[in-house]
Formats: sequence, C-alpha cells, structure tokens
Amino acid sequence: MKDIQSQTDKRNIPINKVGVRDIEYPIILDDPEQGKQNSIAKVDMCVDLPHHYRGTHMSRFVEILHHYHKENIVDSLEDLLQEMKEKLNAETAYIQLNFPYFIQKKAPKTGYKSLLSYQCKFNAMLDDNFKLILSVKVPVVLLCPCSKEISKKNAHNQRAYVEVEVRYKELVWIEELVAMVEKSASQEIYTLLKRPDEKYITESSYENPKFVEDVVREVAQKLKKHENIVDFRIQANSNESIHNHIAYAMVRSENFERNL
Amino acid sequence: MKDIQSQTDKRNIPINKVGVRDIEYPIILDDPEQGKQNSIAKVDMCVDLPHHYRGTHMSRFVEILHHYHKENIVDSLEDLLQEMKEKLNAETAYIQLNFPYFIQKKAPKTGYKSLLSYQCKFNAMLDDNFKLILSVKVPVVLLCPCSKEISKKNAHNQRAYVEVEVRYKELVWIEELVAMVEKSASQEIYTLLKRPDEKYITESSYENPKFVEDVVREVAQKLKKHENIVDFRIQANSNESIHNHIAYAMVRSENFERNL
Amino acid sequence: MKDIQSQTDKRNIPINKVGVRDIEYPIILDDPEQGKQNSIAKVDMCVDLPHHYRGTHMSRFVEILHHYHKENIVDSLEDLLQEMKEKLNAETAYIQLNFPYFIQKKAPKTGYKSLLSYQCKFNAMLDDNFKLILSVKVPVVLLCPCSKEISKKNAHNQRAYVEVEVRYKELVWIEELVAMVEKSASQEIYTLLKRPDEKYITESSYENPKFVEDVVREVAQKLKKHENIVDFRIQANSNESIHNHIAYAMVRSENFERNL
Amino acid sequence: MKDIQSQTDKRNIPINKVGVRDIEYPIILDDPEQGKQNSIAKVDMCVDLPHHYRGTHMSRFVEILHHYHKENIVDSLEDLLQEMKEKLNAETAYIQLNFPYFIQKKAPKTGYKSLLSYQCKFNAMLDDNFKLILSVKVPVVLLCPCSKEISKKNAHNQRAYVEVEVRYKELVWIEELVAMVEKSASQEIYTLLKRPDEKYITESSYENPKFVEDVVREVAQKLKKHENIVDFRIQANSNESIHNHIAYAMVRSENFERNL
Repeated sequence: MKDIQSQTDKRNIPINKVGVRDIEYPIILDDPEQGKQNSIAKVDMCVDLPHHYRGTHMSRFVEILHHYHKENIVDSLEDLLQEMKEKLNAETAYIQLNFPYFIQKKAPKTGYKSLLSYQCKFNAMLDDNFKLILSVKVPVVLLCPCSKEISKKNAHNQRAYVEVEVRYKELVWIEELVAMVEKSASQEIYTLLKRPDEKYITESSYENPKFVEDVVREVAQKLKKHENIVDFRIQANSNESIHNHIAYAMVRSENFERNL
Repeated sequence: MKDIQSQTDKRNIPINKVGVRDIEYPIILDDPEQGKQNSIAKVDMCVDLPHHYRGTHMSRFVEILHHYHKENIVDSLEDLLQEMKEKLNAETAYIQLNFPYFIQKKAPKTGYKSLLSYQCKFNAMLDDNFKLILSVKVPVVLLCPCSKEISKKNAHNQRAYVEVEVRYKELVWIEELVAMVEKSASQEIYTLLKRPDEKYITESSYENPKFVEDVVREVAQKLKKHENIVDFRIQANSNESIHNHIAYAMVRSENFERNL
Repeated sequence: MKDIQSQTDKRNIPINKVGVRDIEYPIILDDPEQGKQNSIAKVDMCVDLPHHYRGTHMSRFVEILHHYHKENIVDSLEDLLQEMKEKLNAETAYIQLNFPYFIQKKAPKTGYKSLLSYQCKFNAMLDDNFKLILSVKVPVVLLCPCSKEISKKNAHNQRAYVEVEVRYKELVWIEELVAMVEKSASQEIYTLLKRPDEKYITESSYENPKFVEDVVREVAQKLKKHENIVDFRIQANSNESIHNHIAYAMVRSENFERNL
Repeated sequence: MKDIQSQTDKRNIPINKVGVRDIEYPIILDDPEQGKQNSIAKVDMCVDLPHHYRGTHMSRFVEILHHYHKENIVDSLEDLLQEMKEKLNAETAYIQLNFPYFIQKKAPKTGYKSLLSYQCKFNAMLDDNFKLILSVKVPVVLLCPCSKEISKKNAHNQRAYVEVEVRYKELVWIEELVAMVEKSASQEIYTLLKRPDEKYITESSYENPKFVEDVVREVAQKLKKHENIVDFRIQANSNESIHNHIAYAMVRSENFERNL
C-alpha cells in the first residue's frame, strides 16, 4: 500500500508538533508507601516533523505507549521518548501524562484513614537533552485574612487548588510537593473527618489566614531553598465562597518555560 | 433524491426520542428590568418516531429553531413544539434550552452594582398538552452549623449551587426563584463586594448557618406555599471547603417527573 | 460535642436523597481476561432522611467506602448498601460509581494489540430489595446511510457514543454489552490500527451504513431477546462530521426507570 | 477598616500575575453584517504585584469590567488595561475574554440560512506597549488522505477543530480568519444542510482529503503572506472517527509567545 504520509511535501513548512492526544491508558507509578500504584492517564504524544515530509505515522505512538504501559512509567520516560524519536524519525519527542495519584491521609485528631486524590502531570521532552516537569495540583483550605480582620467573628473560607510545577535535578516525590503546599495553606483537606477533626480544622484555619498571594509566595520560598529544584511555577485558584468566580495568583521562576 | 429516512422500517421498534443536541444559538428572553435580555443557549430538540419509519429528518429541527430564535423564546415555545410535531410527523415534541441569565445586584452595604450569571434551563414538551419545567441554578454561601457549634470561633463555609426546577400554572419569573433560594441560604453571592459588604456577608452568614439539608427544606417550604407551583425538585451541591467532594441534598414533590 | 445533625427537625419535610458526591477512589473490578482490573471511580453515595432528623452524618459514607474499596466492588455492592442503611438509619441507600474499564482489542487484520477504555457506571439502590443498573458507553463509527445513497462516492462518517443501561437477572459482563453495541454500529473503534486495518475499517463501514436510529434499534432487538435482561435504555450520540452538533436517538423498555 | 492587602510584605517575592478568573459577563462586539453582536464572555483579569505589597484589591477588577461591558469591548481593551494599571498600581495588566461569536452561513447548494458559533478569545496585555492576540476556533471536516488512497471507496472523515491565534498590525476580522481555515480544510461545517447540500459536502470533501498536518500548513502559508499578521500559532485537533483519541498538529511562527 502507498505510504501517503512519507510523500514529499513542498510547502516548505516544518511542523512544530504532531501526534496523538487524549489517549486513556493504565499506568504504573512508584509509591513510597505501597511500592507501586496503579493509575489511569490521559496521554498526549508528539514529535516535530521536518518540512519535507507530508505526515507522521500516528499508529506508532500508540504502539510505543502500549509497549511501555506495564512498566514504571517515570523510569521509562527517557527510553520511551528515545524510541519515539527513532521510530518517527524526529529530532524532538514530547509526552504528557495527566493522572490522579492517591495518598493515604490520617484525620488530624482521630487518626481515621482515607485516601485523597491529587491530579498530577508529567511533561517530558527529549531533543539532545531530556527535560521533565512534574506537576501536582493540591486541594487546600484558604481562609481570607481581610475577612477575618474586618469581621467580629468568622472569616470566609473556601476550597482552593494550588498547582506546583517543577523541574528538578534529582527525583522529587509527589508526596514532598504535596506536603510543601499543604503546609503553606490555611489548612489541608481530608476525605474523612470526624467531629474532633472538623473542630480542629475550623479553629486552626482561623489562626492561619492566607490570601492566594500568601500561599504562592510561601511555596515559592520553599522551592527556592530546595537544592533539587531548578525551575518552578506555582498557581493558586481559589473558589471564593462569597463570589461566583476564582481568585488567582501565580509566581514562576525566571527560567520556567511553560511549554517544554 | 431518494429519501432514505422515510423508508419503511420492519424492526418494529418505536424510538422514544430522536433529534439534535448541543446546538449553540442566540436567544432572546424577557427581562423585567430591561425589557429583554440577549443570551446564548445550548439547545436539544427531539421527537418520537413511530416504529414504521426508518429515520427522522434532522435538518428540520434546525430550520424551526432558526425561524424562532429572534422572537422571545419563552412565549414561542408552544408554537415551536407544535411546528416540530407537524413538520416531523410526530406525536410528541421536546425542547431543552440551557442558558445563562444575568441579574444586576447591588452590594448589600455600599450599593455597588454588578451582574451575576445564573444558569437556567427550559424543559418543554408537547403531546396533547403542553408541559414546561423551568430550572434555575443559584450560587450561594453555606456555612456549616456543626462546624460553628463545635468550634470556638469561625465555621467552615463554601460556595454551593442550589438548583430549583418547577412546573407552574402562571409564569414565575427567574428573579422570584432566585430570591427564594438566596433567602434560604447562609448568604447570597455577589460579583462585586467592597470591604463593608464583605464584613456584612462574613458576619451575617455566621448568624445564619445552614446544612444542605436546611436549604433544600426551606426552599421546599416556600414552593409548597406558592399557589402557582405545581411540582418541584430542589438540589443543593455544596463544594465543601474542608473536603475535595460535594455535600448533596435533594427534595422533590411527589409528582415531579424528572424527564418531561 | 453536640450532635447538631441529630437534632429534631420541625419543618416536616423528609429528604429524598442526601449524601456525598464526586469522591474519587480506587476500585477493583472483575476482569474475565486478567482476573481483576484496577480502576478509579467517581463515587456518589446517598440515603433518604426522615422528616424528624435535621441532618445526615456525611463522614460515615466515606468510612464505609474506605472499608470496601479494596474488595471486588460489584460483589460487595449489596453489603455496602446494607451497611449504609444501618449506619445512617435509613430506609433506602444509593450508590453510583463512574469508572473507565479497559478491554484489550486486536486490530482486525494485523492483530496488533491495544487497550480501549469504556466509561462504565453502576447505579445501585437498596430498600427492601436490591436493584442494580449497569451502564456502558461504547465509542463506535457511524456512517450515514443518506449521505452514501445520494453521493457518487464516499459518505460522511463520525465517532459516536452508544450508552447501554441494563437491569439484569444474572450478571452480564461489560464485554458482552460492548460486543452487542460494536456489532450494531457501522464499525468498531480501536486505539491502534495499521494501514491494512484502516483499509478494512474504511471499506467495511461503507458496506454497513447506520443512522443513530438504526444502532439503537439493533441493540434493542438484541437486548429484548436476551433472557437475562429485565429493562434497558439505549442512547446514541453521534458527533456529526458535517455539523457542529450531535445527532441523538434513544429507545428504552417500558419499565426502565431512569432514576433508581 | 484596616487594609490588609496594602500591608508591607517582607518575603521579597514579586507575584507575576494576580487577579480574578472565570467571571461570566455580557459583552458587545463589532459585527460587519449586523453592526454589533451581543455575546457572553468568561473573563480573566490580572496584574503583576511588586514584592512589597501583601495583596491586590480584587474588587477593583470587577468594577472596571462592569464599567466597560456596555461598550464595544475590542475598542476599549487598551483603555480598560490602562485603568487596571492605574487603579491597581501595577506595571502590567492582562485580560482574557473567551466568548462564542455567531456567523450566518448559507448552505452551499440550497442557500438555507443558519448560524454557526465559533469560540473566540482575546488575550491582551499592557505594560509600556499594548499587545493583543486574537484566537478563533473553527470546526471543519477533515477527510483522511491515507484512508482514501488505500480503500476502494470511501474514506474516514471527522469533525476537527482548528484554532488560529494571531497578533496583527491592523485589525483582522474574525470572519477573515474563519474563511482562511474553512478554505484550508476538506470542507466547512454548517448547522443546517438539506440533501443537495449534504451530497455536495460529501462529494467535495472526498475530492479534498487533508491530514491535520495539511490544514495547519495551508493556514500557515496564508498567514505568512498576510501583511497584517505579525505572529501566529495554528493548532488542529481532529476527533478521529476510527479512534477514540485526537490527531493533533501545530505550527507557530518563530516569535509567537504563547503567554502574553
């Protein structure tokens, strides 16, 4: 059969990225508690395409993903990208995996156990070098310092999502980034809380008011001091209880490039 | 050209609903303040199909919608459904419109004006009779009575969405349903609040703690007393600030049929 | 501490459903090929609440879910609902789980293996009896019979999603429902296809044109003949390639109740 | 009342962006056919925050938006951003508006009229200079050249979304970008097509097969020749009919910066 994709293209326009998106696939992750964790990822895989080829061969992306999905995906990312470069004759290969990662948490007073899901992302590319950005989105409680200051009792508080994206030298665990964010918020979030826990969360968050500006700054301070972190971006999206919109703040290191 | 849709079908299976979904179209609505309001709806239009026809004629739905979209859509719904029945040879015609509706609100202390968007829905059908369900989703503040009771200061509070669906005898304004819900919550929500307003909302919501169970019951009480309301369903979804999940409650009148 | 939820309520309004929604949790499923399959579910859990109680105890839902999540969830559903009824003093308990389920497929000509994800749902309730609805959403190719008939060559074709919901006497496998739908469409969908496979899919779908009306009728015929199926609903949503909207058809058995 | 936001911050971390997101507001747009068009936008507004301030004043964003929403929004963007800089003491102000824009189309053979909605975006910033990126997402038909070549009859085809983002010297109309994309695809998409139109679309798309790679290259060629276009990015996402995932291609000009 004729290979239309390999035809010569004369429009003289190289394509920055071409590939497949939104493939749902099971993956396996390292888990410091349980050894490994099963998850399910939405996967995007792309390569560059030189100006003289008409098209890429989309089925090869899926073949490569199918080959690697039973191995620990983080350890395999560089090999996987190398195989993409080879099988697709590309200079640069990209992969992005979006997946939930579960951490077991104990309620702060009663110790009841439950799981909390954190939405994570690996953004990796390989040209001559391998680059990886790990992203973790952490749900937290934020209690408004202004509302506390001006009101006799109480303060409006709400669920916020703080996303941390980092490029690192040595592997940083998801758990470490999660802890950094949770300690920078008014309080952390749990799936299971009994009344003594609810009392504790309510009272301690009142002692710990934080704007979105505060939480991104505090995480930034920790990341700047961290010897393994090369670059970072921190975004806080707070679903304000008294508005129907989001309060937002973002800090990034100078060399953080949003797109790998 | 051959009309494949009008071919005889021998499988002897009538089709309950067939039509088009997710058509985005501009619509015009009554607005008691401004006279009329422009909005944009996602529209679903369906009819039943007797067992002996192979298919319906999908383009006719769009023709009819295009014809009516420049008129006040609520006043036109029965005529529009009648035209669907005729042009598509159907016994029953259904239309659903999902759209945002804006209400101007004044901040409770400073009087600053801003608009708040409420997601609304018309669910109408025509067989021998015309039936219409109006649905309004209202964002509100809920402050937890348990958290207030057990904690020295403060109480966790959050944004919740209360959806009210009603079948009525005489037209009920969206504004009336919105007010009913907002008065049943810990506090209402505004797009624009200055500091004196924020102080007021924070303090008054603390004086007015409400579970999801409370808010659906209070709206139900008001709807039961309302002489124009025939049937209703009320659902509250509260985006808990201390959890990453939703607290939910629902009350419906005995004869409320979810699907027209 | 005071138990606010157990306070007497005097508004005299029983609540139809109250509980928690959108809890993300890992689950374990039977898999006829591999023995078991790990998945991740969005979970809703509700009970009814008599008029004399002010509130339910939301944390108990999570405790029960945490207890059962390491067991095969389908085998446990009735016990789990029984425990919900007991721990929450309810007459009726409800659970809904939404999750992706992976099936390994072989490309039709080359035999290349890949996984395809099917979005599934268990909707279970327990009052005096246990009721369960299994739902599977199957992506397929639909090729338009009208477009084929009136055009010299080619016919417009597109990805459609056919959702089948069934109540059964004896367990029906997800795989069986998937096969029923895939055989009723113009062609099935694969994650990995090489050129001989693509040629086969293109040519065979052209020999097998189907409206949304056809596919729901053909699945209905199979379900009506199936001795284990008590009730069903079939919905087809076709993302038309020549429009920016959906073509839709639905058939349900007479006693199918949408809400358990 | 105390102004907590204006307190001095000693953490020495400037914040790149802080503001409000997901505010739904009515807007008014130029329309070359009708003079003006009403739409509804999701709005994000941000500023930078120097290291010495603890927080920004979120309510001022909404005040400014409310002031400008009744004017033609495109003509007002620079003034609006200037007012943000002043009222929020910022060096840089950002606004993003996401909105649907309707264009009336005539069916290619019968001339039947209907509206098609295009999702658009303005991304504007003001530091010392004003920068604006206009983005338009165009739904089109793509018919696979490989599938056509290897199959006896027919070819798989599907709905794809092509997003074009441009920075321009002189105003470029949304209509012009839409036409550029529609002429680069296998065929354009309509909300209303009668049978002679469907025949034409089916046959002409078969004569005009296009990969995602082809369509982004052809739009790139047109944009490179266009004297008003300074920078651009083109992305095609094709919802493959034979897969459950997306085929993707992207080309950008060398200086296109994704984030204003």
